Amino acid sequence: METYKIYLAGNFTDSTTYLDVLNPFDNKRIARAGQADEKQLELAIQLALSVQGEVAQLPSWKKYKILMEIAEKMQDSHRHLSELLALEAGKPWRYAKGEIDRAIQTFVVAAEEAKRHPGELLSLDWTPAGEGKQGIVKYFPVGLVAGIAPFNFPMNLAVHKLAPAIASGCPIILKPSTSTPLSTLALAKIIDETDLPKGAVSIMPMDRKTGNLLVTDDRIKLLSFTGSPAVGWKMKSQAGRKKVLLELGGNAGVIVTNSADLETAVKKCVAGAFAYSGQVCIHSQRIYVENGVFDQFATRFVELAKNLKRGAPENPDTEISAMIDEANAMRVEDWVNEAVEEGAKLLCGGQRDGSYYPPTVLTETKPAMKVCALEIFGPVVTLEPVDSFEQAVAEINNSDYGLQAAVFTNSIQQMDYAHRHLEVGGVIINDITTFRVDHMPYGGVKNSGLGREGVKYSMFEMMEPRLLVK
Amino acid sequence: METYKIYLAGNFTDSTTYLDVLNPFDNKRIARAGQADEKQLELAIQLALSVQGEVAQLPSWKKYKILMEIAEKMQDSHRHLSELLALEAGKPWRYAKGEIDRAIQTFVVAAEEAKRHPGELLSLDWTPAGEGKQGIVKYFPVGLVAGIAPFNFPMNLAVHKLAPAIASGCPIILKPSTSTPLSTLALAKIIDETDLPKGAVSIMPMDRKTGNLLVTDDRIKLLSFTGSPAVGWKMKSQAGRKKVLLELGGNAGVIVTNSADLETAVKKCVAGAFAYSGQVCIHSQRIYVENGVFDQFATRFVELAKNLKRGAPENPDTEISAMIDEANAMRVEDWVNEAVEEGAKLLCGGQRDGSYYPPTVLTETKPAMKVCALEIFGPVVTLEPVDSFEQAVAEINNSDYGLQAAVFTNSIQQMDYAHRHLEVGGVIINDITTFRVDHMPYGGVKNSGLGREGVKYSMFEMMEPRLLVK
Amino acid sequence: METYKIYLAGNFTDSTTYLDVLNPFDNKRIARAGQADEKQLELAIQLALSVQGEVAQLPSWKKYKILMEIAEKMQDSHRHLSELLALEAGKPWRYAKGEIDRAIQTFVVAAEEAKRHPGELLSLDWTPAGEGKQGIVKYFPVGLVAGIAPFNFPMNLAVHKLAPAIASGCPIILKPSTSTPLSTLALAKIIDETDLPKGAVSIMPMDRKTGNLLVTDDRIKLLSFTGSPAVGWKMKSQAGRKKVLLELGGNAGVIVTNSADLETAVKKCVAGAFAYSGQVCIHSQRIYVENGVFDQFATRFVELAKNLKRGAPENPDTEISAMIDEANAMRVEDWVNEAVEEGAKLLCGGQRDGSYYPPTVLTETKPAMKVCALEIFGPVVTLEPVDSFEQAVAEINNSDYGLQAAVFTNSIQQMDYAHRHLEVGGVIINDITTFRVDHMPYGGVKNSGLGREGVKYSMFEMMEPRLLVK
Amino acid sequence: METYKIYLAGNFTDSTTYLDVLNPFDNKRIARAGQADEKQLELAIQLALSVQGEVAQLPSWKKYKILMEIAEKMQDSHRHLSELLALEAGKPWRYAKGEIDRAIQTFVVAAEEAKRHPGELLSLDWTPAGEGKQGIVKYFPVGLVAGIAPFNFPMNLAVHKLAPAIASGCPIILKPSTSTPLSTLALAKIIDETDLPKGAVSIMPMDRKTGNLLVTDDRIKLLSFTGSPAVGWKMKSQAGRKKVLLELGGNAGVIVTNSADLETAVKKCVAGAFAYSGQVCIHSQRIYVENGVFDQFATRFVELAKNLKRGAPENPDTEISAMIDEANAMRVEDWVNEAVEEGAKLLCGGQRDGSYYPPTVLTETKPAMKVCALEIFGPVVTLEPVDSFEQAVAEINNSDYGLQAAVFTNSIQQMDYAHRHLEVGGVIINDITTFRVDHMPYGGVKNSGLGREGVKYSMFEMMEPRLLVK
Repeated sequence: METYKIYLAGNFTDSTTYLDVLNPFDNKRIARAGQADEKQLELAIQLALSVQGEVAQLPSWKKYKILMEIAEKMQDSHRHLSELLALEAGKPWRYAKGEIDRAIQTFVVAAEEAKRHPGELLSLDWTPAGEGKQGIVKYFPVGLVAGIAPFNFPMNLAVHKLAPAIASGCPIILKPSTSTPLSTLALAKIIDETDLPKGAVSIMPMDRKTGNLLVTDDRIKLLSFTGSPAVGWKMKSQAGRKKVLLELGGNAGVIVTNSADLETAVKKCVAGAFAYSGQVCIHSQRIYVENGVFDQFATRFVELAKNLKRGAPENPDTEISAMIDEANAMRVEDWVNEAVEEGAKLLCGGQRDGSYYPPTVLTETKPAMKVCALEIFGPVVTLEPVDSFEQAVAEINNSDYGLQAAVFTNSIQQMDYAHRHLEVGGVIINDITTFRVDHMPYGGVKNSGLGREGVKYSMFEMMEPRLLVK
Repeated sequence: METYKIYLAGNFTDSTTYLDVLNPFDNKRIARAGQADEKQLELAIQLALSVQGEVAQLPSWKKYKILMEIAEKMQDSHRHLSELLALEAGKPWRYAKGEIDRAIQTFVVAAEEAKRHPGELLSLDWTPAGEGKQGIVKYFPVGLVAGIAPFNFPMNLAVHKLAPAIASGCPIILKPSTSTPLSTLALAKIIDETDLPKGAVSIMPMDRKTGNLLVTDDRIKLLSFTGSPAVGWKMKSQAGRKKVLLELGGNAGVIVTNSADLETAVKKCVAGAFAYSGQVCIHSQRIYVENGVFDQFATRFVELAKNLKRGAPENPDTEISAMIDEANAMRVEDWVNEAVEEGAKLLCGGQRDGSYYPPTVLTETKPAMKVCALEIFGPVVTLEPVDSFEQAVAEINNSDYGLQAAVFTNSIQQMDYAHRHLEVGGVIINDITTFRVDHMPYGGVKNSGLGREGVKYSMFEMMEPRLLVK
Repeated sequence: METYKIYLAGNFTDSTTYLDVLNPFDNKRIARAGQADEKQLELAIQLALSVQGEVAQLPSWKKYKILMEIAEKMQDSHRHLSELLALEAGKPWRYAKGEIDRAIQTFVVAAEEAKRHPGELLSLDWTPAGEGKQGIVKYFPVGLVAGIAPFNFPMNLAVHKLAPAIASGCPIILKPSTSTPLSTLALAKIIDETDLPKGAVSIMPMDRKTGNLLVTDDRIKLLSFTGSPAVGWKMKSQAGRKKVLLELGGNAGVIVTNSADLETAVKKCVAGAFAYSGQVCIHSQRIYVENGVFDQFATRFVELAKNLKRGAPENPDTEISAMIDEANAMRVEDWVNEAVEEGAKLLCGGQRDGSYYPPTVLTETKPAMKVCALEIFGPVVTLEPVDSFEQAVAEINNSDYGLQAAVFTNSIQQMDYAHRHLEVGGVIINDITTFRVDHMPYGGVKNSGLGREGVKYSMFEMMEPRLLVK
Repeated sequence: METYKIYLAGNFTDSTTYLDVLNPFDNKRIARAGQADEKQLELAIQLALSVQGEVAQLPSWKKYKILMEIAEKMQDSHRHLSELLALEAGKPWRYAKGEIDRAIQTFVVAAEEAKRHPGELLSLDWTPAGEGKQGIVKYFPVGLVAGIAPFNFPMNLAVHKLAPAIASGCPIILKPSTSTPLSTLALAKIIDETDLPKGAVSIMPMDRKTGNLLVTDDRIKLLSFTGSPAVGWKMKSQAGRKKVLLELGGNAGVIVTNSADLETAVKKCVAGAFAYSGQVCIHSQRIYVENGVFDQFATRFVELAKNLKRGAPENPDTEISAMIDEANAMRVEDWVNEAVEEGAKLLCGGQRDGSYYPPTVLTETKPAMKVCALEIFGPVVTLEPVDSFEQAVAEINNSDYGLQAAVFTNSIQQMDYAHRHLEVGGVIINDITTFRVDHMPYGGVKNSGLGREGVKYSMFEMMEPRLLVK
């Protein structure tokens, strides 16, 4: 049984308390991980501040070198990191491997963006007052960053905080999810081998009370949180003067139109709905299909949903495995049962088995049902027919969330209408809501978040403009 | 005695309560102004929301036309607007006229920027996952904006909220200062004559309690506040999910080096220190002079400070007039007296006369004194010698504020050092801290604020990016 | 009979020879215009060079003021300028008025872009060699510009040289077409009333031999030519070290697909084909219609083409008038007759009447026929059915020209395919090839030209980047 | 004796004629290199065109992978490539190694820029004509590129053509210098191992007559030439419709002011003047020193110049070696002797020894002397005192060339004056004229060239914008 120590400002340190990290599939303990206490967090903050100036002044070639070295070493440890991630998160092997690929890419993108900080040259002589003067806007690191990462993409969503912080020149303290701390603690070993000044990165699981100091401590200049809306928005109100970046959840909607390539749409929707048991912020939760193709779509969709291969996460054939824990599977079960009681019709799925919940398709739902209105974070999707494209857009907007939406269409008009009217952060044409590449701007509106991630965009948040007038 | 009605979503409406607006110079009543009550605010919000979609879809040529028409009509009413402003704010005529000029320019810049919304084209094929796809990022108006403006630049700082909101396609409700509501209510008449949809703009003085609804109401998507730090930061914690833009105060520092053109530096510093009695966010409050030229600088500075012409605001010769009210003059008096008691030396000024406070110069101060550490917002400046440029930078950074700083030097190295190390929003070389043109990014770090204004920059805050992947 | 003098570096000067300017509709003389001889051109060059430094250093607010003043005075003289243009060019009144509107807009855009010169801030520390350094790229005016404008849009295509030159800080010598010099000489009077340094602009008709000095003189740093390909490409080879910007002709193609809104497509195509008798660089010359809708399209197209109202240019109802001269009408007649002899079928038109040539529609043409392969610059269009979208794209690319192309479709795939594969400067979706707004990048590839106009893009050509490394 | 075959569209092919490649230091033959004849060039063009479409459509991740693989394999062969380069060019080992480093960096930068093609989103609704429309500008590869590279940086200046062509999606035919073809033919082997479609790159020495077909052939869309002004400008006139990018020579000037750090300035100036025997386009040829420090500067400069270590190129200690051939050394000797005869004073150097020419310093020269007015391309520098900074700027501008200039100063005013007034492509503050990093814009004005290289900037030239209006 391996023990993963916390990474405190360049030291792998013992803890006063340890977490048992379980495989969600069989609830067996995989390893132990240390937790930072308040004193250790205080030390991490102080050490981070002590190297803040040094980190801020790193030339871009050094940041590039460090970030590329991390990417290369992750590539060298690809198998090990994928395994850790599959086991701690119960994530099917194919998705675990894909997440490590993406985390590597996130570091590569950050390496490149470290050389491309924004900057602006302004003529100031628009009025006589500025005659002879010019403005130069450069972007400087904001200072100490706190990152809080969730369980569902324990590696890549953490890397979306770590890599931009390094590229921006900010020290960072990362709190991984207490369910899934192993992969980032393994990453800490890789980071530790580089020339990055010790103290620039700390990676430390901690309990909620300690973690909340990351929200309230005034020496931290930016909080980047990925997690649930309720927690996120509360943090915003407690964050004092610091900047806050929130990547929260959603109940992403999909529109399938008469002009869509139907087989493509079905296949992509099945993936969007059930990959990693729907435990994805941009999981496709609500699918609206134009009347003309609804029956055909629904039949084929249910057929494919039923055939997804259930299995252990480490099995290469597995398409769907256990949820993160039984409590979540029970919550999903309750919501589905409640919907069915209120009149929804179950097209497939619906039978929980411990922490496993099968691919489940509902129809004849109402917008106010939890399966529609809240973020289900499970392998459940609603399928509803619509009379028109505009109605489908209105249905998607009829929600408190706004992260991403997908539209299957070949119509220019519908594409433009969707871009103008869908109240979300991203509109995906002819692909699924879960589409994300790591350099694109990503984030939600309404209840789904504040600000954007995506390396360059996170970096922009992690820096302050400073105008020089001369 | 004229009565200025509130401008509620396209109607000039009667109020349940009225404010007396006084000339700070002689405390005579200039006019009465209506105040909105909670019901009226609710109506303004509802009417704003009812035209939100229409405002968001305005083509850029219409927004350009509306904004340029406002600018032209302000030019036609230049004298009238300048008078109102001079009287309500006690602002010397030369500065009042200058402010109207700048507000006109702010509208012109907004007209142009209405045609230049940001946008981005992204190749997404950095990995095979994105092959064949591209990303288009467009910026959409965030929704209803609330603006809260201060007394000291009652016109232009309000216009820095109104003009970007119109240019972005957001409806806006503006709360002017209750001391100085007349000039913006006069502007409302001009706005009302344009083709802007009624409801897109409301301009309404209101009491604090009503005004606080602008902070807490969830239908408002962005709050742009200019005012004091204490109020601003509290608003941030109460603002719920909305975005918050804070333009707060400072205690701006100046460095005068041995290589500076001394006569230029003195003259600009006198203006920066005493213009509008220092009631300016970027008022020069702390001047650090290299030892080699300190005595010469101080002698000449005091000489010019003493010779500033006191008078009524409407007199074209007046260089300094009354402060906004006697309470503020008394506060300044207290701080200066306290500093002197604690060992500071008065080089000139220091004798209050009702709401008038004279140009006052202190030396031998300590950083912890209120005249150094807090925002004095009065005609008081501290002059201190420094041994080195680096020490001067450290002194400026030794403050909770960080708005703008000025450096008088001809050294490339010092300029670059200042840009890299001064913890402020803007570093002004060879001009004074109060330098601002209306299209430059403007705003502070640390206690001085959050985000940037400056038309294009405010517009950026007032919009949300929405990615299209196709 | 009015005489228009040449505008030589701030002076309206007598000439040794004069041109008779005729109304193409009735061949009556409208006015006389001076021509510059070689000595006068030499003087214009010398005077331009003498103010080159002054023009280059103009602050942007002055350039803005000058350009906006020109726009406003053109608006005041709108009727007069439209009349001159209609008469000298034989351009129907509606189009003449529209051209003056656009020329005004071109000045407004230039005024705004004068404040927005490009500029770039570069981090140079991508390798240790650049550590501690940064780069600042500013754009400086290239020097003296020569502009040569054609007869067909005598005002706006000249303004597309004049306005960017002023906005860039370059002096310019403009040679208008000898057929249509009056409107730009009238514009010279407006320019002369502004504060632009005398010498910065000369507007002078001249004969070919004198005009050729604009191509060969080494003191001129950029030649911007709009005209025929043969002349343009020859100029490129004679231009020495100067930069050359060529806006030449084309035989623009249109694709009408099965998914198009057919009535819209027909109406827009008729306008694209016959407006100003097709004497437009981006005149729609070749229309490819998918088989499924060809007959319907052709029938309706011919119907509308036949009903266009012929008349005098100054008549507000006139839709089509005389061509610029009888020689051109005869050339068009020859090409059409030759096509018919080689097997093409005439669907309407084809009968010349003096310098009038009617709206003419051909089908069953072959790519090698002059009416297809060359630029017809007359009111003639070919209509051909195609089996597929890809075939239509291939047909358009099967040409030596590549200016603009239009595609009527509602398919995202076809739009993307067209953007990727059509070898042209601009692809217009659901509008006609003649679509142009004055701030968009405009220009051709292949035989159709070199470089782009469109204010900002012309300005980019008229400036040189200069890197500062510090 | 190794034979290097030409690389013809993916094949290493035999030639009808071969070149002997000599070590300039001892005139011993190093290797033989093939030369392409006209038929082989024709074949290379045809094969390039046959893959043009495939190359243009490569996704960015493939281009990134190919370019990074080249960079990595060059790193693996670093020693071999450095040796080849040192021997064929007679380049001292330290500089040869540095050039390979830079060529690797050029590929890395190109890999990154392959993912960052320019693109622009335009609102078109600035007038009612564009209401509801938007513009999307994408950049597409221009087509087949011809590159002609010089002897002095045989690797990196060739890579500045190859890498951007690949990153842009253009096939390229590269003609290396016939004196120094070995390093690029070795690079061809590395390129050949990647997945780049065969035909996309040809690297082939050829004689002038054959090479001239690269200039005149109309199927080639862009010519990128680095070499002498006389040849370059002639090519421009013969290039037909293709775009031409010229990187020509100069007589770069340096200003050393009273405020400069003198020891730093001297050391950098010695390097700028004599590195690789001044056979560098941006070699420091004319040094202007303010009167106050002239004597001190001159004394120290001559002292260091005399102490440069002469030796064989492959010797790690060598600082200066033979020139490229004796003809060039004799030309330099003639120019120096001529200057001395006309009154110039020799401070050191001046004695030729075969193809070796020593570090030579002249003073009391006149601007019309060849050593000042022409590009000497040898280890000769002129030192002249000036009365003022402005005079020094005027002296530098008093030349037909304008590539780069260096200014040693600590004055902000002088820096700004230099940036505004020096007629060059790049102004280097406190470093030498030879400063270049590979991602910065690089190129000259006046006789020194047309357009800019520097990966991103070359790529911009190698692409055409194509507007989509929808």
